[in-house]
Amino acid sequence: MTIAPEEDRLHAQISFALEIDKLKRVLRRNHLMDGSRRENDAEHSWYVGMLAMVLAEHAPEGTDIQRVVAMLLVHDLVEIDAGDTFIYDTEAVAAQADNERAAADRIFSLLPDPQGAELRALWDEFEAMRTPEARFAKALDRLAPILANHHNDGGTWGLFKVRAAQVREKVEIIEEGSPSLGAFARELVELSVSRGHLAE
Amino acid sequence: MTIAPEEDRLHAQISFALEIDKLKRVLRRNHLMDGSRRENDAEHSWYVGMLAMVLAEHAPEGTDIQRVVAMLLVHDLVEIDAGDTFIYDTEAVAAQADNERAAADRIFSLLPDPQGAELRALWDEFEAMRTPEARFAKALDRLAPILANHHNDGGTWGLFKVRAAQVREKVEIIEEGSPSLGAFARELVELSVSRGHLAE
Ligand SMILES: [Ca+2]
Repeated sequence: MTIAPEEDRLHAQISFALEIDKLKRVLRRNHLMDGSRRENDAEHSWYVGMLAMVLAEHAPEGTDIQRVVAMLLVHDLVEIDAGDTFIYDTEAVAAQADNERAAADRIFSLLPDPQGAELRALWDEFEAMRTPEARFAKALDRLAPILANHHNDGGTWGLFKVRAAQVREKVEIIEEGSPSLGAFARELVELSVSRGHLAE
Repeated sequence: MTIAPEEDRLHAQISFALEIDKLKRVLRRNHLMDGSRRENDAEHSWYVGMLAMVLAEHAPEGTDIQRVVAMLLVHDLVEIDAGDTFIYDTEAVAAQADNERAAADRIFSLLPDPQGAELRALWDEFEAMRTPEARFAKALDRLAPILANHHNDGGTWGLFKVRAAQVREKVEIIEEGSPSLGAFARELVELSVSRGHLAE
């Protein structure tokens, strides 16, 4: 019996599915909202996908929210190989770009064509931050840890000695994707500063 | 200063966002693909959302995959209150329906209208299994633990003394949502039986 092409496609898709399960074991710096443990990339990806659905009205008019959701579900897959980079570690962020591209090459090519290229394009779009969808997705990705740290009395800001000026730079990225969420994030940051949970 | 209605909406949306973070602490019976620990509902929801994107071609023609993704992202939110029910515990599954409805009433009503009703409708649709979208979503929800147990030498099937006949009933649910994924799941189950990883 020769293997039908559809069967090859399914087996490639299942190989990809088995591979991406590893995202559940990539740990991020920030904690859950209750501070009980570090968050992993898979549950974070679910969370920001939900934020996209719930906060859709804060995206610029005409933003394709379902594309934002898809982008957020795949946005961290490269960290299976490249690991999580702490966004306030500037040197690590620069070195990470090459590692993440190599990871994208490997992981998305597990999928049959053109599916691998399509999902890879979603990741490239997210990283380039040029479309309203990518900018809104990036805004939510930056909002989530601010929300968690704010509700954790500063959480990992204190732990990793992050300064208010550094967080305010991230707020600017949120503003680019969504002015109203940017304003909200700014309020949270200033409230955290005034409560002594984030150092100037 | 009176609070603008948009601000009320945002605050309600953020309350919902803070609440659903708890899904990361609801543990399921099955383990990760590598068997290292139990899976939680949030990372499971991400995983099945990814499966919907990756296995889209196995849904019946005309299935709205983005709706399937959205449905899968919200499908387990009720377990924040009601907890995970082991699908092979028939008594628990029956008692669970009322608890889950009460949970849906509470959790989705944290959102402003009509958003709360819209997300609630996605959950109701998933549970009713009457649309192709709901049946495909349910198929993926059933496929994921079979995939994990198959790749874990039987995993939680052995641990909880699940029999092949019980797993074959779940395969029928997968077949209803996707004949090709149903056939694939049946192969995995019979392979697990022949390897002695799932008892008759
Ligand atoms: Ca469940």
